Amino acid sequence: MAKKTGKKYVYFFGSGKADGRGDMKDLLGGKGAGLAEMTNLRISVPAGFTITTDACNEYFKNKKKYPKGMWEQVLANLKKVEKTMGMKFGDSTNPLLVSVRSGAKFSMPGMMDTVLNLGLNETTIKALIKKTKNERFAYDAYRRFITMFGSIVMGVDRQKFEKALEEMKGRKGVHLDTDLTSNDLKSLVDEFKIIYKKSTGENFPSDPYDQLKKAVNAVFGSWFGDRAVKYRKLNNIPEDLGTACNVQAMVFGNMGENSGTGVGFTRDPSTGQRRFFAECLINAQGEDVVAGIRTPLHINELKKRLPKAYNELDRIYKKLEKHYRDMLDIEFTVQDGKLFMLQTRVGKRTAASALKIAIDMVKEKLIDKKTAILRIDPQQLDQLLHPMIDPKAQIKVIAKGLPASPGAAVGKVVFTADDAERAAEKGEKVILVRTETSPEDIGGMHAAQGILTARGGMTSHAAVVARGMGKCCVAGCGAININESQRYFIVDTLNIKEGDYITLNGTTGEVIMGEAPLIKPELTGDFGIFMKWVDAFRKIGVRTNTDTPHDAAVARSFGAEGIGLCRTEHMFFEPDRISAVREMILADDTEGRQAALAKLLPMQKGDFIGIFKAMKGLPVTIRLLDPPLHEFLPHTDEELKTLAHQLEVPFDKLKARNKVLHEFNPMLGHRGCRLGITYPEIYAMQAQAIIEAACELSKQKVKVIPEIMIPLVGHVNELKMMRELVIKVADDVQKKYKTKVNYTVGTMIELPRAAITADEIAAQADFFSFGTNDLTQTTFGLSRDDAGRFLPYYVEKGILEDDPFITLDQDGTGIMMKIAIEKGRKVKKNLKMGICGEHGGDPKSVEFCHKVGLDYVSCSPYRVPLARLAGAQAVLKEKMGKDLSKATV
Amino acid sequence: MAKKTGKKYVYFFGSGKADGRGDMKDLLGGKGAGLAEMTNLRISVPAGFTITTDACNEYFKNKKKYPKGMWEQVLANLKKVEKTMGMKFGDSTNPLLVSVRSGAKFSMPGMMDTVLNLGLNETTIKALIKKTKNERFAYDAYRRFITMFGSIVMGVDRQKFEKALEEMKGRKGVHLDTDLTSNDLKSLVDEFKIIYKKSTGENFPSDPYDQLKKAVNAVFGSWFGDRAVKYRKLNNIPEDLGTACNVQAMVFGNMGENSGTGVGFTRDPSTGQRRFFAECLINAQGEDVVAGIRTPLHINELKKRLPKAYNELDRIYKKLEKHYRDMLDIEFTVQDGKLFMLQTRVGKRTAASALKIAIDMVKEKLIDKKTAILRIDPQQLDQLLHPMIDPKAQIKVIAKGLPASPGAAVGKVVFTADDAERAAEKGEKVILVRTETSPEDIGGMHAAQGILTARGGMTSHAAVVARGMGKCCVAGCGAININESQRYFIVDTLNIKEGDYITLNGTTGEVIMGEAPLIKPELTGDFGIFMKWVDAFRKIGVRTNTDTPHDAAVARSFGAEGIGLCRTEHMFFEPDRISAVREMILADDTEGRQAALAKLLPMQKGDFIGIFKAMKGLPVTIRLLDPPLHEFLPHTDEELKTLAHQLEVPFDKLKARNKVLHEFNPMLGHRGCRLGITYPEIYAMQAQAIIEAACELSKQKVKVIPEIMIPLVGHVNELKMMRELVIKVADDVQKKYKTKVNYTVGTMIELPRAAITADEIAAQADFFSFGTNDLTQTTFGLSRDDAGRFLPYYVEKGILEDDPFITLDQDGTGIMMKIAIEKGRKVKKNLKMGICGEHGGDPKSVEFCHKVGLDYVSCSPYRVPLARLAGAQAVLKEKMGKDLSKATV
Repeated sequence: MAKKTGKKYVYFFGSGKADGRGDMKDLLGGKGAGLAEMTNLRISVPAGFTITTDACNEYFKNKKKYPKGMWEQVLANLKKVEKTMGMKFGDSTNPLLVSVRSGAKFSMPGMMDTVLNLGLNETTIKALIKKTKNERFAYDAYRRFITMFGSIVMGVDRQKFEKALEEMKGRKGVHLDTDLTSNDLKSLVDEFKIIYKKSTGENFPSDPYDQLKKAVNAVFGSWFGDRAVKYRKLNNIPEDLGTACNVQAMVFGNMGENSGTGVGFTRDPSTGQRRFFAECLINAQGEDVVAGIRTPLHINELKKRLPKAYNELDRIYKKLEKHYRDMLDIEFTVQDGKLFMLQTRVGKRTAASALKIAIDMVKEKLIDKKTAILRIDPQQLDQLLHPMIDPKAQIKVIAKGLPASPGAAVGKVVFTADDAERAAEKGEKVILVRTETSPEDIGGMHAAQGILTARGGMTSHAAVVARGMGKCCVAGCGAININESQRYFIVDTLNIKEGDYITLNGTTGEVIMGEAPLIKPELTGDFGIFMKWVDAFRKIGVRTNTDTPHDAAVARSFGAEGIGLCRTEHMFFEPDRISAVREMILADDTEGRQAALAKLLPMQKGDFIGIFKAMKGLPVTIRLLDPPLHEFLPHTDEELKTLAHQLEVPFDKLKARNKVLHEFNPMLGHRGCRLGITYPEIYAMQAQAIIEAACELSKQKVKVIPEIMIPLVGHVNELKMMRELVIKVADDVQKKYKTKVNYTVGTMIELPRAAITADEIAAQADFFSFGTNDLTQTTFGLSRDDAGRFLPYYVEKGILEDDPFITLDQDGTGIMMKIAIEKGRKVKKNLKMGICGEHGGDPKSVEFCHKVGLDYVSCSPYRVPLARLAGAQAVLKEKMGKDLSKATV
Repeated sequence: MAKKTGKKYVYFFGSGKADGRGDMKDLLGGKGAGLAEMTNLRISVPAGFTITTDACNEYFKNKKKYPKGMWEQVLANLKKVEKTMGMKFGDSTNPLLVSVRSGAKFSMPGMMDTVLNLGLNETTIKALIKKTKNERFAYDAYRRFITMFGSIVMGVDRQKFEKALEEMKGRKGVHLDTDLTSNDLKSLVDEFKIIYKKSTGENFPSDPYDQLKKAVNAVFGSWFGDRAVKYRKLNNIPEDLGTACNVQAMVFGNMGENSGTGVGFTRDPSTGQRRFFAECLINAQGEDVVAGIRTPLHINELKKRLPKAYNELDRIYKKLEKHYRDMLDIEFTVQDGKLFMLQTRVGKRTAASALKIAIDMVKEKLIDKKTAILRIDPQQLDQLLHPMIDPKAQIKVIAKGLPASPGAAVGKVVFTADDAERAAEKGEKVILVRTETSPEDIGGMHAAQGILTARGGMTSHAAVVARGMGKCCVAGCGAININESQRYFIVDTLNIKEGDYITLNGTTGEVIMGEAPLIKPELTGDFGIFMKWVDAFRKIGVRTNTDTPHDAAVARSFGAEGIGLCRTEHMFFEPDRISAVREMILADDTEGRQAALAKLLPMQKGDFIGIFKAMKGLPVTIRLLDPPLHEFLPHTDEELKTLAHQLEVPFDKLKARNKVLHEFNPMLGHRGCRLGITYPEIYAMQAQAIIEAACELSKQKVKVIPEIMIPLVGHVNELKMMRELVIKVADDVQKKYKTKVNYTVGTMIELPRAAITADEIAAQADFFSFGTNDLTQTTFGLSRDDAGRFLPYYVEKGILEDDPFITLDQDGTGIMMKIAIEKGRKVKKNLKMGICGEHGGDPKSVEFCHKVGLDYVSCSPYRVPLARLAGAQAVLKEKMGKDLSKATV
């Protein structure tokens, strides 16, 4: 029949021969491909067939009608299954029962679960009883079938079945399902049929073919279920993949003490240790574990009780692992002493486990280093660098925000940066809880173990700064309601007061009540070995974004090859200098500003000496002052009054100045080199501090490579003017110190105009650094701070594939970068180019940066290993000519 | 000698033969070229020579040393002048005196003035007395020479000389210089020499060659004088042009009743009438007019008193005009009955005069139409469309702001929009004086004759809206200090109260006390004829930006060929609908919004019917809602309270909503199609109003061409989604009305991302309209509202050539446009493209738009004629292959 219709929609597998193969995931889905592959390996798999994803897609294209010939192929293959198994579907003596499962290319929540025991009706159950001589087993199978079919296929509320079951147990005075008798189950089946009819308006289908058709439709239909659609959007899985549908002969692990079922991993998924990590149940079906009715046993129990089956399993899992060359997740059932494999797929694992397995498999010569490198998800690597909550701990999650900066932290709640600093001085561990953070909170953020904010996204101030510090942060946790003045926050009905302990999980965004036990990261030998392999393949450099000697040292220990972005303004917020900064801002003229700047000079110089020392021998890119001046002034009248008092300035004057400095669109305002041009004395002071620091260290034979970076250049003349200023200052300082410093002057490329005039700008620049945060904002005309009201919706609705502030928008911002790279290199063939936006720590974006030929990426310290790995993977993928998205999902 | 040095630095002119020509302005400057040209025309010009601009440039390159051979050439040419004039420089019997003048390619303020009578000293004065037999004349010449040389060449404070002169007159008890005797003047010369020595530390130079050298150095030096440098920056005149220096034999108009001097235009510079428009003085030097000592006489006086010289002058001016084919400005002197021409150049004229002269000269076959079209400065054309202050009126300027919208207006001062509206209802003419305007002031702006603001630039709200209305506006007048609550403003010591009359000159930015007399514009036949010629050459279309039927009609009368931008939000501010708008904003859900939108629907539909009727048969591009919603809410607590009361909404809710809507960078926030995507019901209502209006008029056989424009598209998916929404609504409406409307759906290109992905976007668009205001903001990363603190400085310092919000930044924003045009047309060859930013009314920008192949520009109604002219000029210039900047200065 398949021949007649032309197109093959159904793929058979059974008795050592399958129509499909393991590499046909597109057509057969992951599960179907795995079953075909195992069958071909002559591993014992219950016979069955897979209806292809093509069939599913055509079904939807064709207004929910099966494509021509599909059903005929289903019937034909069912015949083959009957033949293989020696049983007959709907038969009154030896009935074939089947399971029906969805199976897309990628497993996803919301897709249809398994329906077991399909084919049971009043006729076949009698045959089953007769054949198994086990009425209780048969009725148990029947009531399970009705529950699954009713709830999963027909959408009947599962609770209704559960409730009837509970009532039955109550009536019978028993606690366990297994305590119910055959008769109890028989009358439960009748009750279930009534529930089914009440809910659906139809009788429970007795025709096995009707059952099958409804189940197949439900599998197909689940592809466009709300949860599946949403999951696909979130994970960038195309709509047109479709799902396959697997129909497979049932085998039973609950046919007696000679039967059983189990799941396992071929190695330890937590640690990666090379040992069979599996559990089993005797005389049970897999779903019993899920239902919590039975507690699984160690796999040794199987060895003890069913040694023949166990030995077979041992042989098979090793064979499979060798065949797939990866750690696998397997499912099996023993029916009456005979082992059947039901599923195999690549197993999920922790970062630590992934790393150990990859390294071990290289040692075992199962895989080469390239494969090992490609096996580790860069995002996952992050886990290894941060403390984590003990996975075995019982925790109480009270709210969930955005996983803004990974790791975990435990501490007492405080509500202000000052409180955090005071507590830290006393040696207390605290969690800083704020509505949102501002640059003035930096000190408190440093002092705290972790940061929790009620507002703000993945790229809010709190998130960006916390990631920079490698500090755990949960941001935008809208469920918490902060009362800062009264020092408590409310979540649901809970009232968490200052001093109460909470725990944050920055990797998941969870907020946990009390002190959860943490596991400290161990950068084991494996990590070091692996990163050495990574660096052997990597071509793109990896630097870090940091402003403090401490963070610089951390980043260096993570393998940073320099600083790509040292933001000088963060230094301005230190409590000992903010007042000089404010004095500078409030000065009436150049002289006044210069006087205030003179106070800042030695402090900035000290900062640079510290950073240069930490980065000895490596380049340090220092960005001159960037934010608008009003960011350094407080905003409320109250704060202004205090400041006026401190600075001995009339309040009115301060307020007036604050008003003058106000901007409608600060992002597009008086900032970056526009400050340096209108107040050259500010940049002059900074250049002086940098070159003086460099001169002093040079004299001490410390090798210093300062790269001075001019921000927000839009026109070459801006850069030219600032470059001349820096060179003039540097000349003067070098003369004074009678020494030479090997410094360079470059620019950020962060405005579209800079990108498209990069040829002109290159003539005045020793290097380019792409500021992709601002470049994204201006290319899209999108304020990161204001995008919260529509950007999530855009991503959800698929208008944008990714949040462009997290993953570089390659078709827009990326094109802008390409234009700049091409134009810049046309003028200066070897112009050094890097990226210092947040994207420098995003794997997809790192791959893009490699492809377009950047010299380095720069990211926050804790992202350095991730970026190194992503860089190496980019090289390997390029060689393989593989598409990124296909390789990583 | 010139041959020996190789390079020619000095060009002789005299007795009918000149080394140079009239087209050698680059080398000889305007004055030198004119003198050479007149000489070659055998017009009597005192002999002299021009030192070239090259010499000046080399002088500066060579650390203020003359280039090799220059001085020798000066001396050789001086000999030729001596020979031609039959006199000798520094001679004791027949001394040659000379004038020394600067002469750059373009005349500019700050360049060195004339020094007359150079060559006088104790020897030559005696010869002069003997020769002229007029001792008084000689000493008068001498004291004038010392004054000019001292002040102009050596920088001695001119007041010192003036003071000595005044004191002499006081001592002598006379009022006029002319009442001083020869002896008085002689002793004044001695006094002047003492003043000179005191001020300069040196004796007054007696060596004529020394005098000459110092004067030449002063001419060269003036090229880098502060005022000249600043003027060049402001007018985009390159630094490296240099100035020429003209040395010319003196002739004297003050040698007796047989002598005289005068200036004139070959036609009337005010009206353009074809008549000799000149004035003269008998027995006087030109500077006497400047000094205000003598009142010039009608030229008929010359005819009466020196008929021979007059007839010669009459012959010459006609000859010159015919030769130059333009209206000329001339200077002449009659010495002892003989006429000498001292200067000729193209004369400055009013717009009306320019138009009449151009048209007359075409009729006279002096020039062709192309030349006529190129002769009119598009900016000047504006004068013809607005009332102007009678140039003859005596006015008192009390302050100066930016010339934000041309024309003039007289009215009583009011300080609020409401007051303006109330006064207008009573038929009173008022000037609205505001610190700055906001959209809520629109009604008052309409009602007022003119608008004066204390803050804001050329592209502030007041400026943009006023230009749109064709209403006079002076913006950013920082000198006025407004006290709105007390209803007065202060400027210097003046207190102008509500109800006081003031006059605004929006063409110059002047604020004038009292009621100045105005002249109404007359769009005479000349204007119509000229614009017909213009349109015959023009290729680019000209549309208008307008939101009201009235303005649409005005624009149409000015020749608009459609509406390029109809902003629907302005309609939202009308008092009768703002409350429905606010209700919509404050709604809690889609239903609430829809209810409020239902109230707005009939009003918007009415708006569109009015505009479609006014633009019958022409395309009307309607932009769907663009600004962020918070723009429609008031901001102060007080206003919010009033609103809460009006809307019967709790104040707290209103305030909370206002806070939620607040944005850090509204320019980059929740606006444009982002509103349409998150609140589709808003765009649906607008689309419905447009299509319903179109359907109703179609049924009445009114031809309607609506073009629906989606703003702020950054990603093709945004446009796709909104396009589908509009089409769905349009389908429904057309079905309901049982008629078809020929509408299109297009998009603004106003974000860099839209420009660089224009190929993708083109696939979903029927047209592109470049929103160059926003495109400039995002390309530069520059907020128009915040740029005031540094952009003027940028332009002044030459970092940017022009304010990019006034004249399109061709190297940045322009490149972005070119990318979009190219990518868009690659996908759709004939994709209609226009521009609707402010730049559509700027001549340079219009030329750019023509060059890059846009189909039309769109500008405010009063700029339509200007854009038409600029469009025609673009075609002509393109043909001539001429560079714009060269042609217009």
